[in-house]
Amino acid sequence: MSKEELEQLRAELKAAYRKYQDMELSLNMSRGKPCKEQLDLSMELMDILNSDSDLTCEDGTDCRNYGVLDGLPEAKELIGAMMENKPDNIIIYGNSSLNVMYDCISRSYTHGVMGNTPWCKLDKIKWLCPVPGYDRHFGITEYFGIEMINIPMTEQGPDMDLVEKLVSEDEAIKGIWCVPKYSNPQGYSYSDETVRRFARLAPAAKDFRIYWDNAYGVHHLYDDRQDQLIEILHECKKAGNPDMVYKFASTSKITFPGSGVAALATSLNNLEDIKNQMKNQTIGHDKVNQLRHVRYFKDLDGIRAHMRRHADVIRPKFEIVERTFDEQLEGLGIGSWTVPNGGYFISFETLEGCAKKVVSRCKKAGVTLTGAGATYPYHRDPADSNIRIAPTYPSVEDLAKAADLFALCVKLVSVEKLLEDSENK
Amino acid sequence: MSKEELEQLRAELKAAYRKYQDMELSLNMSRGKPCKEQLDLSMELMDILNSDSDLTCEDGTDCRNYGVLDGLPEAKELIGAMMENKPDNIIIYGNSSLNVMYDCISRSYTHGVMGNTPWCKLDKIKWLCPVPGYDRHFGITEYFGIEMINIPMTEQGPDMDLVEKLVSEDEAIKGIWCVPKYSNPQGYSYSDETVRRFARLAPAAKDFRIYWDNAYGVHHLYDDRQDQLIEILHECKKAGNPDMVYKFASTSKITFPGSGVAALATSLNNLEDIKNQMKNQTIGHDKVNQLRHVRYFKDLDGIRAHMRRHADVIRPKFEIVERTFDEQLEGLGIGSWTVPNGGYFISFETLEGCAKKVVSRCKKAGVTLTGAGATYPYHRDPADSNIRIAPTYPSVEDLAKAADLFALCVKLVSVEKLLEDSENK
Repeated sequence: MSKEELEQLRAELKAAYRKYQDMELSLNMSRGKPCKEQLDLSMELMDILNSDSDLTCEDGTDCRNYGVLDGLPEAKELIGAMMENKPDNIIIYGNSSLNVMYDCISRSYTHGVMGNTPWCKLDKIKWLCPVPGYDRHFGITEYFGIEMINIPMTEQGPDMDLVEKLVSEDEAIKGIWCVPKYSNPQGYSYSDETVRRFARLAPAAKDFRIYWDNAYGVHHLYDDRQDQLIEILHECKKAGNPDMVYKFASTSKITFPGSGVAALATSLNNLEDIKNQMKNQTIGHDKVNQLRHVRYFKDLDGIRAHMRRHADVIRPKFEIVERTFDEQLEGLGIGSWTVPNGGYFISFETLEGCAKKVVSRCKKAGVTLTGAGATYPYHRDPADSNIRIAPTYPSVEDLAKAADLFALCVKLVSVEKLLEDSENK
Repeated sequence: MSKEELEQLRAELKAAYRKYQDMELSLNMSRGKPCKEQLDLSMELMDILNSDSDLTCEDGTDCRNYGVLDGLPEAKELIGAMMENKPDNIIIYGNSSLNVMYDCISRSYTHGVMGNTPWCKLDKIKWLCPVPGYDRHFGITEYFGIEMINIPMTEQGPDMDLVEKLVSEDEAIKGIWCVPKYSNPQGYSYSDETVRRFARLAPAAKDFRIYWDNAYGVHHLYDDRQDQLIEILHECKKAGNPDMVYKFASTSKITFPGSGVAALATSLNNLEDIKNQMKNQTIGHDKVNQLRHVRYFKDLDGIRAHMRRHADVIRPKFEIVERTFDEQLEGLGIGSWTVPNGGYFISFETLEGCAKKVVSRCKKAGVTLTGAGATYPYHRDPADSNIRIAPTYPSVEDLAKAADLFALCVKLVSVEKLLEDSENK
């Protein structure tokens, strides 16, 4: 396009943008939050236990009283089935897997991992961060003063050449954040080869651990397009690295966020190490809520059936965003986006240097997105190009408007950039 | 008594002891656990929320979704009333106040208190431990390698002359464990003078904090004999030490242990410091359970009425133990015991060097008590004389037998000690 054509286009886009501003939208797409209809799916969870219920679990424990540090046997069974791990490898925690991850890092910092030097006694701790990634992961490592190193993501997972090289060379690298299935924000799932290469890592640090946050293990959008992951604990064991992974999951996006159960799966050595700390921290987590979840779902089939109902609610939301982008942006060369089979996000790549402006434009027209940069450690996206789109919370109608506005802002900001670039030439 | 009389008595006591062994008792009085009848009192808690409930809280938040780091407004209101603190000074946590205390120490260790040097960067951290005290408190400080210093308890609370002297002299002393009301295990409540002296402490360490575990704030046994405590936050503020105290409480021994809500009350400065950490650790605690508790109790009167029902269940248990001790041991000079107005324990002092043997004797006859020494840091009771008795869990009938056996064991072990002493002369 010539400069004049671009200026003409900019004027048209600005006019369209002003119309959006007049609509006084107020939509929040900043976080991966379930919508009301999704929460309504789990309301019967509230009926499972009542004053006539016997709150005794399978092994005879009265779940109303103190005790049971690592979770009810039947909760380990259910969550183990969901995580594809044996009940013996599971600890059931409280309401937040993020809290479990934080506690793992905090414990390693104060007391070390399986007899190794506590991290607080070391000069420097480093961490690998596949990018774009989950801001709350990066928030924990930043809080502990851990130096975060960006690892580019590919459609097959993190750049494993780089991961292998760095962990084998640098003893200060103690961990890596992974969302292996339907990654946050791209919705990519690690390939079999990637998982196998993870299991075969040869880290310089004995206390290196893979933080495998399987947050979206059962969160498929489609019946006929479901990503499958090789089970990492099993794979690490086969590779002679049985203790190298902590695997996390929760029911936060299955029942109620903040009122579900979280879990960790890992080797028996790691479990012993962790329980030795936990026994000082708490007498036990909320067993009544564990029982409530077990009796509600009964088994993995119960969870799967429930997740299909979630998918029915949110699939149209992903589809309206994808359709809008297809219609408005396909082939223009000013942006690309992911089309995930599950999870909670769509990742959008603008032209370099445009993400912040797009997010700002959307905000000024009433649509709040995740802050640009949030998907990178220290909130620094070197290319200023990644935007995380969280389509689950708004209604389909609102999303249609928001996606339209988003596409418009991408066009407008891109045209402005092209004009600016041409002026700078 | 002459040696012959003592030997005669020992033979009689041994015969009586053997009869107990033949009874094959199996009672556990080791922990401060509510009994089944107490748990039954809260079963209607399970009916409060059902699938027809509106799980929106007062400020419009959908409690089923993510968010609200520091607790629902109405939960702060209710727990604040119970703790005698303003809602603004409260954080509502998860299911365990022990976990909150652990996290406070862990946070201070990794990141320091309000800008002060993180404890992990200091050579030595010390802690004051009123003794006898709560083993799980001591467990946390021991786990963090903190040197624990015994402070003798009196009926008015810890020896404040010693507390004042030590904290003003030694910057390494960063805290003190307190169970100010119906203390664990003695059931003593701090006098007004003790609380005031706490509030007026002049610690050498700027980051010294009083860990005020008000675990038994509303746990009275009698309507007409209730201990009252001066409110410590208010008192600290008046004394010019507004930030010196963290105050803890929970509903563990009000509704269901492990499935209730815990809380912290402290100054706004401390709250800001703590929330700055918490926001990295979790998105929020279980709001549905907060709502369940608020709607169940409605207000402080609801909690008080509920606690009277608890008292009706456990008062006879305390009374049978006290009556048995009165009948069997009063005036013999071989032991003393506390007669608390609330809380969960009776503390027994044997002759020096007898506690372990009494506990062992009881165990061999089928009655498990808290391990002797557990009420002291490092499990070391210098006089080997303190035994914690937890009368709430067994039935009144079983307790009658257990208290009888306990008194018998005290007599037997004391007679053996007197004989041994006479032989050693």
